[in-house]
Amino acid sequence: MPSRHVINAQVSPKGSLETLSQREVQQLSTAGSGSIYKLFRQCALAILNTGARIDNAKTILDAYQDFEVRIHQQDRGVRLELLNAPADAFVDGEMIASTREMLFSALRDIVYAANELESLRIDLDSSQGITDYVFHLLRNARTLRPGVEPKIVVCWGGHSISTEEYKFTKKVGHELGLRGLDVCTGCGPGVMKGPMKGATISHAKQRNLTGRYLGLTEPGIIAAEAPNPIVNELVILPDIEKRLEAFVRVGHGIIIFPGGAGTAEEFLYLLGILMHPDNQELPFPVILTGPKSAGPYLEQLHAFVGATLGEAAQRHYQIILNDPAEVARQMAEGLKAVKQFRRERNDAFHFNWLLKIDEGFQRPFDPTHANMASLQLSRELPPHELAANLRRAFSGIVAGNVKDKGIRLIEEHGPYEIHGDAAIMQPLDRLLQAFVEQHRMKLPGGAAYVPCYRVVER
Amino acid sequence: MPSRHVINAQVSPKGSLETLSQREVQQLSTAGSGSIYKLFRQCALAILNTGARIDNAKTILDAYQDFEVRIHQQDRGVRLELLNAPADAFVDGEMIASTREMLFSALRDIVYAANELESLRIDLDSSQGITDYVFHLLRNARTLRPGVEPKIVVCWGGHSISTEEYKFTKKVGHELGLRGLDVCTGCGPGVMKGPMKGATISHAKQRNLTGRYLGLTEPGIIAAEAPNPIVNELVILPDIEKRLEAFVRVGHGIIIFPGGAGTAEEFLYLLGILMHPDNQELPFPVILTGPKSAGPYLEQLHAFVGATLGEAAQRHYQIILNDPAEVARQMAEGLKAVKQFRRERNDAFHFNWLLKIDEGFQRPFDPTHANMASLQLSRELPPHELAANLRRAFSGIVAGNVKDKGIRLIEEHGPYEIHGDAAIMQPLDRLLQAFVEQHRMKLPGGAAYVPCYRVVER
Amino acid sequence: MPSRHVINAQVSPKGSLETLSQREVQQLSTAGSGSIYKLFRQCALAILNTGARIDNAKTILDAYQDFEVRIHQQDRGVRLELLNAPADAFVDGEMIASTREMLFSALRDIVYAANELESLRIDLDSSQGITDYVFHLLRNARTLRPGVEPKIVVCWGGHSISTEEYKFTKKVGHELGLRGLDVCTGCGPGVMKGPMKGATISHAKQRNLTGRYLGLTEPGIIAAEAPNPIVNELVILPDIEKRLEAFVRVGHGIIIFPGGAGTAEEFLYLLGILMHPDNQELPFPVILTGPKSAGPYLEQLHAFVGATLGEAAQRHYQIILNDPAEVARQMAEGLKAVKQFRRERNDAFHFNWLLKIDEGFQRPFDPTHANMASLQLSRELPPHELAANLRRAFSGIVAGNVKDKGIRLIEEHGPYEIHGDAAIMQPLDRLLQAFVEQHRMKLPGGAAYVPCYRVVER
Amino acid sequence: MPSRHVINAQVSPKGSLETLSQREVQQLSTAGSGSIYKLFRQCALAILNTGARIDNAKTILDAYQDFEVRIHQQDRGVRLELLNAPADAFVDGEMIASTREMLFSALRDIVYAANELESLRIDLDSSQGITDYVFHLLRNARTLRPGVEPKIVVCWGGHSISTEEYKFTKKVGHELGLRGLDVCTGCGPGVMKGPMKGATISHAKQRNLTGRYLGLTEPGIIAAEAPNPIVNELVILPDIEKRLEAFVRVGHGIIIFPGGAGTAEEFLYLLGILMHPDNQELPFPVILTGPKSAGPYLEQLHAFVGATLGEAAQRHYQIILNDPAEVARQMAEGLKAVKQFRRERNDAFHFNWLLKIDEGFQRPFDPTHANMASLQLSRELPPHELAANLRRAFSGIVAGNVKDKGIRLIEEHGPYEIHGDAAIMQPLDRLLQAFVEQHRMKLPGGAAYVPCYRVVER
Repeated sequence: MPSRHVINAQVSPKGSLETLSQREVQQLSTAGSGSIYKLFRQCALAILNTGARIDNAKTILDAYQDFEVRIHQQDRGVRLELLNAPADAFVDGEMIASTREMLFSALRDIVYAANELESLRIDLDSSQGITDYVFHLLRNARTLRPGVEPKIVVCWGGHSISTEEYKFTKKVGHELGLRGLDVCTGCGPGVMKGPMKGATISHAKQRNLTGRYLGLTEPGIIAAEAPNPIVNELVILPDIEKRLEAFVRVGHGIIIFPGGAGTAEEFLYLLGILMHPDNQELPFPVILTGPKSAGPYLEQLHAFVGATLGEAAQRHYQIILNDPAEVARQMAEGLKAVKQFRRERNDAFHFNWLLKIDEGFQRPFDPTHANMASLQLSRELPPHELAANLRRAFSGIVAGNVKDKGIRLIEEHGPYEIHGDAAIMQPLDRLLQAFVEQHRMKLPGGAAYVPCYRVVER
Repeated sequence: MPSRHVINAQVSPKGSLETLSQREVQQLSTAGSGSIYKLFRQCALAILNTGARIDNAKTILDAYQDFEVRIHQQDRGVRLELLNAPADAFVDGEMIASTREMLFSALRDIVYAANELESLRIDLDSSQGITDYVFHLLRNARTLRPGVEPKIVVCWGGHSISTEEYKFTKKVGHELGLRGLDVCTGCGPGVMKGPMKGATISHAKQRNLTGRYLGLTEPGIIAAEAPNPIVNELVILPDIEKRLEAFVRVGHGIIIFPGGAGTAEEFLYLLGILMHPDNQELPFPVILTGPKSAGPYLEQLHAFVGATLGEAAQRHYQIILNDPAEVARQMAEGLKAVKQFRRERNDAFHFNWLLKIDEGFQRPFDPTHANMASLQLSRELPPHELAANLRRAFSGIVAGNVKDKGIRLIEEHGPYEIHGDAAIMQPLDRLLQAFVEQHRMKLPGGAAYVPCYRVVER
Repeated sequence: MPSRHVINAQVSPKGSLETLSQREVQQLSTAGSGSIYKLFRQCALAILNTGARIDNAKTILDAYQDFEVRIHQQDRGVRLELLNAPADAFVDGEMIASTREMLFSALRDIVYAANELESLRIDLDSSQGITDYVFHLLRNARTLRPGVEPKIVVCWGGHSISTEEYKFTKKVGHELGLRGLDVCTGCGPGVMKGPMKGATISHAKQRNLTGRYLGLTEPGIIAAEAPNPIVNELVILPDIEKRLEAFVRVGHGIIIFPGGAGTAEEFLYLLGILMHPDNQELPFPVILTGPKSAGPYLEQLHAFVGATLGEAAQRHYQIILNDPAEVARQMAEGLKAVKQFRRERNDAFHFNWLLKIDEGFQRPFDPTHANMASLQLSRELPPHELAANLRRAFSGIVAGNVKDKGIRLIEEHGPYEIHGDAAIMQPLDRLLQAFVEQHRMKLPGGAAYVPCYRVVER
Repeated sequence: MPSRHVINAQVSPKGSLETLSQREVQQLSTAGSGSIYKLFRQCALAILNTGARIDNAKTILDAYQDFEVRIHQQDRGVRLELLNAPADAFVDGEMIASTREMLFSALRDIVYAANELESLRIDLDSSQGITDYVFHLLRNARTLRPGVEPKIVVCWGGHSISTEEYKFTKKVGHELGLRGLDVCTGCGPGVMKGPMKGATISHAKQRNLTGRYLGLTEPGIIAAEAPNPIVNELVILPDIEKRLEAFVRVGHGIIIFPGGAGTAEEFLYLLGILMHPDNQELPFPVILTGPKSAGPYLEQLHAFVGATLGEAAQRHYQIILNDPAEVARQMAEGLKAVKQFRRERNDAFHFNWLLKIDEGFQRPFDPTHANMASLQLSRELPPHELAANLRRAFSGIVAGNVKDKGIRLIEEHGPYEIHGDAAIMQPLDRLLQAFVEQHRMKLPGGAAYVPCYRVVER
């Protein structure tokens, strides 16, 4: 690889790691050299590649096998030493400011937070303990800003969507930014990037210098693909459940764009929570949207919700087709109600304490064949429990499609069997079929899709 | 036009027009309703269309024939009333901040400045008076910021360039922004936009919230095409000579991208000034650059300068081919020398007082056939005078190509004749031929180019 | 004077003189070396003594006879060269920031403004022209800040008051500052200083970093006594009439503390304006206040207003005795009405355009014996005209007491005779007697007071 | 007490307690209602009296026996409810900003920090653990600001000094402020207040809006006397040893004004640390100063140091008599060396990690008769150990003079006996005699001083 440019450099932190005690630096240095070194190194490498155009994690890892990042203690605080780092992360020998920020976000969330967790003695076995931990991670990342009024709009949807759909997400982001709203996504490509790009332009048009582009990610994801450089706040949550909780607790409203099984999982997670009796009066604007061509997709999703969770579930969101300005207007309207409600209930603007999240949504679902087969999918369940089980079903399908462990299980035991009432199974089957037909169940490599599941009516 | 959305609205100023005296508002209101109303209305309409994708001035003017803008006096100050204004300039009834800023920039520079000029009793017949006037316009627009170190990079080049060249300008802008430099252009499309777009991204990457995107334009140009919305400082100079003077007095260095006769005119203007004996020691970084494909073009331009103005002229710039980072590095290097020089000479950072501009460059050249035919183009002239005459020749060609008056003259009298020594005429002819072949002498409408000039060797 | 420390230094401007054109600097330099040099030098010397404890102008002028201040032109702008300047104005060779600010305020208002006036072609013979000029001086001094809500409280009263009264003014200032209000005075000692001192402490307590301490003065006054160093905005108006107009146009409310004939003059000026029929609906909070011991004084002033201008005049102010918090509360209340009114009428917050000031109040009164004797002081006049004449009477008394010209006239021709109806003359006589008894008609040097006037009933 | 005004109010935090988790608020509320409630209530009451002029803690506590402060949990965070609070802390029903800040400083340092300490599992038995704890308290109070260059000047000295000495401390503070330096004191009256007052004025003169007035105090002290309202950062350390450590780790230089036994204790603490071999190369500017009248006092202290700790000890400070500007100049000079040193050693500007503090200085000394009698005071000890023992001797004398426990011990067992070499004992005796003669050993109530110690030569 003669054309690979590398640099050795030393960088000091900006932000919450600027004032560490000697003990903290020492712990950091110990932790960062130990078991989590590999994870931190991977994330660091991905972040240093933010500037580059290569998406493929493998390629990056291979190209920089001799890359090293060392955590040093000096009296002043912590210092990172980088060896054989991608030269693209530097300008005339100095690291690009946003890259440096993200690098220390990774150090903070992956290494420092691990230490903190231990010293906080948070009980991760209790629902409240998990919420508490999410809060601490976000506060430590300086994401929670008291007194700022509700304006964080979470955008969910596929990371691999059509050009038309991508352009549509940019337009929606543009309209959100025109109305002074901020954008929070999973910080990858596709729907994670489009709305941020759009909002960047419109924030500039509105001379808004404080626009926030919040990326919430997981170590596994950031290691595979660098956050887009628009992200100006990066938080790395330890797993998908805490990441989803972070989304619904810091976000004030959610827009769902087209996507595949993963997006369906997120949507059902959200519906399951909003349908919990304790959340009945809690305003939480949710909008399903897409370009004209996404009409049939949205209709089908809507019909599926109606057929399985009922009309009550449908009342938790609205569908707005092909009208970015209207999406933003309705969201802005919805946020007013959120503000009003939080003020009345004395809830913080920066963290949705009042939202009840059942422990079932906080704990990872392990998609073994037995667990999948024993999911109860019946209209006799309370709707929010049915939603939780449907989410688990989709979670399993995502695993069977793309995750290492899931794929191996399928290879060994064949497709999952999902059992349930006909009233649930038929709509589920139709939805999944549609995903396949619309190429929303993409596989790495692009091979034709062979379902990893089998729907079995009871 | 059933789909045309219009809005009536009232807007108050932001910026230097916020505190006017009653007398000033009254003068403004009088002036703005009088002879310059038409000009102001056109500019206002173009600015209100910034958000839209329509480039064509005619189309806009036709579409909004009933648009009106009225200047009102109220005790508090000035207020604009807009009737049948394009709805795209508004979000939920409120004007977009950047649009409002630009609207009042137009009011300030077109209407207010006209009043000011009179009361300042500046002698526009003297060289110093013209410089003084340019200074006043820029200061009134709050463009001159004392104490800020030299970092404004002017980008010149064609407004209609190839996609490859456009992408290259973005890359150069990106590299400039990575090094903390600001961008100043003529604020239209093409080279006027690309570097700003690139710098926007890199300023964001470097967490630089104070990046400047300075657009210097003329009434005729802004009326035809809206400034791109990245521009965050807009100044409208009354004519091309004052605009060129503004470029070289507020800019600290200049990058020249590929372009046609207009760009050649600008380049010769710059060389003519830099070759003036009084400017001999004055550092002024100038870089000619382009993508690989622009190599022949740059070589030819360079050869033309060598053949006509000599090696001494060539020492005033460097050519950097296909290396955006190197362009930015060299510019940053050059700016250090500018800073050092101004500090030593006690010159302001914000206005290049020490730059000598001969009156010949400050006064408009009227491209009649007689004036064109009598241009002295001989190597016996001092080089800076020859440069001035060559600039006039190109200025005439631009007029003959695209300006109303020039086109009419050519229709009436046939092509201009340009006389001169063979040593000048042959390189000139070759250069012009090349422009034609490379489609850099584009005409509105895209017809095949018929030269408006004839080169005659003496 | 062997212990006198002097320094030679060069200083560059901060503020509005930072970006001057070469022409402007040249004019400045010419003007500053000419007829107004003496005035500017005096002011500069007084300002450079701000740090010192010597109040006496004579002493200062004598001590620094070899002090010089030269205005230099350099490319960058203007520069002042100081020779034999008081060393107290410097710290380790560098001028104290506030001193530097005030020095350039003097240059701006005394030298620069003189040039501007000429070029603005303002008609100082018309009432509107005078107002316009006051506006330009204030805007040029950056005193007019659009969008800031009404909170400038003018404090008037004697510069030579009792310790008890001085402490009371500090308490009132403290209470004003606690409520976020700013203070504007004539910027000398006594009442001009006390409220600012009090507000400094309370602004600090309220963590208010943007408190304004606005001093409006005249060349004659600043040359005699340095502005107190709390003043963070200094504007030098050319004469007492423009200074009074500046007070009532930038101030949003006025507090009048005890004082002598000068304070009475100011009070009558204010009443005369507020009683003008055009100002009938204009809210303008005015509060007379003082410590307990000032009760009789305030009662007498109040009675005098009642007896001469009638109850209608009394309705324009309230008297609050010995209750600083109540003074501030009532003022804050009154300012709300001002804000409401200006909003409704679209008047600026930063300049009271709607206040009608009769030309009679804008033109200087020349206190010759003839002019004093012919003042009409009759209850048959419209009250606001009677107020204007009473003001003139007090203006004459002030002149006869302390101003060079007045004193000479009295020496030559004996006391002024003031004629009028018994209904006016008797209360006037009583008020003046009381001033004498309360030592409010102090003379320089402290000699026993011999009245410069004789009240003659008709 | 009919004139006592009280108010019931609810206040929300500003600063680091704005974003607490529900668990944290709950812990706070539990802790604040428990054993430390009494302490917190006392501090809160003292702080609410900041505005008042009553210095006597007893008087305040008696006057507001029904005062209560309750810590409430609400979703948004913590909220304080105050019952029967002194009305002086409020303006028109709203708490004064600085009072609110200090109130939450007390909540943070007294209640919150207690919780934190537990969860941090810091080992307060080790020297490093104690330093770590001091660091955490300061960081939690946002006192540690990375990147700000060294400019915190600690001022030590008596809280009860002569008017002349008090005025001198103001002058020194004024000169420090003129040079951009910040002031840190123990935040009570006397020397704790004078330098802050002086610096307030000069920071204003230098237009420095970010001047820091850092007060480091202890619960026992703040409960007795309110911090002066100039203090804009208040940190409450748990005991005198941690407070002294905080002084020497955040302060960059120290000025010692006249004082009594307490000041001598501080001075010996400082010398003992600076004389530690590990600190040999560490620059730490220390200046002893006072007005002319303090000359003999300073001489005596200096002689005492020479006679006991030797010339080497004397080299750690300089004495500057009656020259405030020179004090500030020398301090500014010394701070340059500190900056240079920290930069070279990569130590933080905001915390003096490299300063070695022996455990002996970190642990409280219990002044029993046995401990006092067994202090080794011999020139044969290494000087820094002798300094430590001398400090303990003075600590005991302070206790015997004014602290409850010490006074009781003296009453019971008679004066302490302090044994040692004649070479130490004689200078000590002379110094203590001088303190008595100069009335620097004041007792509460002002009775004639009866020594609580007896110096015994060995």
